Amino acid sequence: MTMISVVVHGLGNIGRHAIAALEKAPDMRCLGIIRRPASLGTQAQDLRGLPDFADLEALIKAKGRPDAAIVCGPSRQAPDDAARYLAAGLHSIDSFDIHAEVPAVVRRLDEAAKKAGRVAVTAAGWDPGTDSALRALFEAMTPAGTTFTNFGRGRSMGHSVAARSIQGVADATSITIPIGGGRHSRLVYVLPEKGASPEDIKARLAADEYFSHDPLDVRFVADQAELDATADNSHGVLMERIGSSGLTSNQRLCFDMRIDNPALTAQVLVSCTRAAMRLTPGSYTLIDIPPVALLPGERMDHVARLV
Amino acid sequence: MTMISVVVHGLGNIGRHAIAALEKAPDMRCLGIIRRPASLGTQAQDLRGLPDFADLEALIKAKGRPDAAIVCGPSRQAPDDAARYLAAGLHSIDSFDIHAEVPAVVRRLDEAAKKAGRVAVTAAGWDPGTDSALRALFEAMTPAGTTFTNFGRGRSMGHSVAARSIQGVADATSITIPIGGGRHSRLVYVLPEKGASPEDIKARLAADEYFSHDPLDVRFVADQAELDATADNSHGVLMERIGSSGLTSNQRLCFDMRIDNPALTAQVLVSCTRAAMRLTPGSYTLIDIPPVALLPGERMDHVARLV
Repeated sequence: MTMISVVVHGLGNIGRHAIAALEKAPDMRCLGIIRRPASLGTQAQDLRGLPDFADLEALIKAKGRPDAAIVCGPSRQAPDDAARYLAAGLHSIDSFDIHAEVPAVVRRLDEAAKKAGRVAVTAAGWDPGTDSALRALFEAMTPAGTTFTNFGRGRSMGHSVAARSIQGVADATSITIPIGGGRHSRLVYVLPEKGASPEDIKARLAADEYFSHDPLDVRFVADQAELDATADNSHGVLMERIGSSGLTSNQRLCFDMRIDNPALTAQVLVSCTRAAMRLTPGSYTLIDIPPVALLPGERMDHVARLV
Repeated sequence: MTMISVVVHGLGNIGRHAIAALEKAPDMRCLGIIRRPASLGTQAQDLRGLPDFADLEALIKAKGRPDAAIVCGPSRQAPDDAARYLAAGLHSIDSFDIHAEVPAVVRRLDEAAKKAGRVAVTAAGWDPGTDSALRALFEAMTPAGTTFTNFGRGRSMGHSVAARSIQGVADATSITIPIGGGRHSRLVYVLPEKGASPEDIKARLAADEYFSHDPLDVRFVADQAELDATADNSHGVLMERIGSSGLTSNQRLCFDMRIDNPALTAQVLVSCTRAAMRLTPGSYTLIDIPPVALLPGERMDHVARLV
């Protein structure tokens, strides 16, 4: 089996789990981590023995050119990071999660990927990501009907990062709470910066694209310890579809998942890295990828085992 | 939108639902049904106004050449039927359901499809079929772990057909009952032929490939009315996976579906007919098809809506 060589960009929650998933993947090896220069050599236990580098050039010089980059930085920077790795001749795989902007990112990365003769997989987490593939499959099974995607209860990584970027917020945790019918409320625990106005923080949060569509409950905490006690990485989704197949109603489909959030996102990124090696140049999301392309080994073995 | 023209082969449970699903599909039209000559013109209400023909040549003469054939005859005949339609220059889509024989059928139809420059989609029901795609996705999300696929309670079309083909059986209904851990018992209601030996029927059922792997409960009924009262088309599946993403355990995935069985199978066949128009020549199962290819309309609209 040819080993797929991978670089992980970023050593946050998802990057750390990506390293772990690569360690377990029988067909991949991680050449190293690319991090901010100021972070190099820190958090040695999270590197799991892998070398870290300030940029791709330094990694290539030391380890050779990887096949693919798994982009694990902040979501808002993912399209730029992905485009840069594509231009450098690597496949890029990211879990960009701002749903409304996904089509524009798909178009941008499609052009960049085709120009480079490489593959970009974007929005490759669980939502957007595997949930997207399930929504497509559910519609193929029941073309008329309604799907509710109910998230949580759990911490949203994207929303927590968005809350932290709000002016006056020192740190924050955003919990997603399902309120039925595919609607959610957002419970945001905020550690304010010294002297920041709580009312201003609330207003800025309420105006942010991540929070403006849902009921919002902002709670201020006194210190970091109180914030850290508010949430861990548990998350989940309940996806419900009731619809009809042909002229027959009362078809009921339900997907219920309870997971460690960054661990799953990282695993999807790693599985999509494998798919990137098998696809023709261009950009892809989970709905564009044959499920078998995500698995290690030979297609016909999976046909025999899974079909 | 170019309309995909389709012929439906067979007017059993699945064939009738395939006609209904084609009626609802915005991008397809059914040119007619191919049936046994002895059946022509009967069950007019099931034809829903469509013409029926004894063979493809007669249909082509009256209606022109269809793009694809949806094969809805008995499962054991599906590979031969599919190969014949491929040789005639049509895409073929079938729901062949004998799991152990799927790889051989995939290989046979791949050769036939490539020779004809057409696409074969096989094992395109819900299990094998959409369940197969879900099993693959679940493994991509949690590479280590165990999946249990628990069917029922409901009538198995494949097992009922298999039971009916047993010597001494006039008619039969086979109910699949989940007993946990992905295991099932088979409850088979049998209307015996006059003079047939119940013990012989039981022995033949127990030796059949469809029944030899599971606990078997055979019950004999006195007449057709008693048999007809035993089961309808309700069915379902509970697919459970517990596993790990990377080094993180306790990832829990569950798919729970309650459906009208032939209606769903027929809808999957119709959705796969659409995919056949978009794929390169060869044979495919549901794990080989990008989910978006199953849906009508433009990929980027689905990216915006589902991703």
